[in-house]
Amino acid sequence: MSQPAPITAAILVIGDEILSGRTQDTNTGYIARFLGALGIDLREARVVPDVQAEIVDALNALRGRYTYVFTTGGIGPTHDDITFEAVAAAFGVGCYYHPEAMAAMAARYKPGEFNDARRRMAYIPVGAELVRNTVSTAPGVHIGNVFVMAGVPMIMRAMMDAIEPKLQRGAVVHAATVQTKVPEGRLAEGLKKIQVDHKEVAIGSYPFYREDGNGVQLVARGRDAAEVETAALEIEAMLRDLGAEGIRITA
Amino acid sequence: MSQPAPITAAILVIGDEILSGRTQDTNTGYIARFLGALGIDLREARVVPDVQAEIVDALNALRGRYTYVFTTGGIGPTHDDITFEAVAAAFGVGCYYHPEAMAAMAARYKPGEFNDARRRMAYIPVGAELVRNTVSTAPGVHIGNVFVMAGVPMIMRAMMDAIEPKLQRGAVVHAATVQTKVPEGRLAEGLKKIQVDHKEVAIGSYPFYREDGNGVQLVARGRDAAEVETAALEIEAMLRDLGAEGIRITA
Repeated sequence: MSQPAPITAAILVIGDEILSGRTQDTNTGYIARFLGALGIDLREARVVPDVQAEIVDALNALRGRYTYVFTTGGIGPTHDDITFEAVAAAFGVGCYYHPEAMAAMAARYKPGEFNDARRRMAYIPVGAELVRNTVSTAPGVHIGNVFVMAGVPMIMRAMMDAIEPKLQRGAVVHAATVQTKVPEGRLAEGLKKIQVDHKEVAIGSYPFYREDGNGVQLVARGRDAAEVETAALEIEAMLRDLGAEGIRITA
Repeated sequence: MSQPAPITAAILVIGDEILSGRTQDTNTGYIARFLGALGIDLREARVVPDVQAEIVDALNALRGRYTYVFTTGGIGPTHDDITFEAVAAAFGVGCYYHPEAMAAMAARYKPGEFNDARRRMAYIPVGAELVRNTVSTAPGVHIGNVFVMAGVPMIMRAMMDAIEPKLQRGAVVHAATVQTKVPEGRLAEGLKKIQVDHKEVAIGSYPFYREDGNGVQLVARGRDAAEVETAALEIEAMLRDLGAEGIRITA
């Protein structure tokens, strides 16, 4: 059965605070799962600093390669928030004060509080559409195949909800996970055979070391739910042949 | 005062499990802080899938740009572990069974258990040196300016300890963090002035939304500890001028 062309995506995380180790990025995992539920394949993620040339180069590399690019970070009112200008530079356009964004933000603040710094959050690339921010008003933007979102997780999540209706959807990837205590080195040969027999299923092996014991999670992922289930059943049978057991978990 | 050339680094995370959202990457943050303590600047991070061409392209882009590249993931015994072959391809070399790695691993396993799958973990790029793995024996490797490590955090951390003596060190970046409840939009103008006055200090503004209240962390980072402290004192004074207070935190 021939598959339609996959819908692909990349994430561009913009922020010195991730690269310094100060802040643990959790947006990538959230966006990955969000896109996965829509049948969109996340193929790459990059983290770059708050430096315009770095943002431009990465964005141009990614937007040429994938169906969508999602950026996080750098759209606030302070001097280190340079994402809108960088995105505009990547697209070869200027920025302007978007009337609708200006009006929404003017309505949010008390008289005299909608100052120049806050107006910067409405200074967006020419040709971009707004992405609604139900948390704190200042919008994200959508230009070409690029969605520009906030870095604060609560706001990013609200923006993803606003973006969702605009996205093409693909066939969802199904996953089955079998957990076992058999070491990877003992199950590798049998697992490889199952992978060879199911080329449309991606089988991954992920060892873990925990205080309550070590083990491995064997994950079968693919768009054909029946074939994923067949692969998982074969993994369980392979483990039984090794005199061990595997338990299904929802990872 | 002229600074010596910075020592820079990139991280290449190799693994479908990060891009599917199944696994939360924490290695990037750990490595960022580890390198920071050595005065090495992490400038970029990328996540790519378990696909040789993707690993090769990313690795070649990164190793040409930064002093060091650190990879995580894909060096186990299962079919989805393809990092050593990919790194060899990036360097245009083959792989071979490294005698010292073979001997160490043969000694670890019981007779008959050092099978073909496990031998793959000793099949490393020609010209690479071993990186010791005190947790589970199977080594990482060091080739050119690239360090290839495991993805399991416990093992990656042991490998970073083994790598540390090989790394050049730079001047450490000092940081001071002032936390306040003043909204970013009110402090942005004053903060920008402080940034303009201290070009060698990078000042970042990071809002947070928590159940116990919202706020902003203002972070000054730089290699001159006295100038970082001066910037932090100016941030505190600026907040006082706004009728608010800032508290120092160790972030």
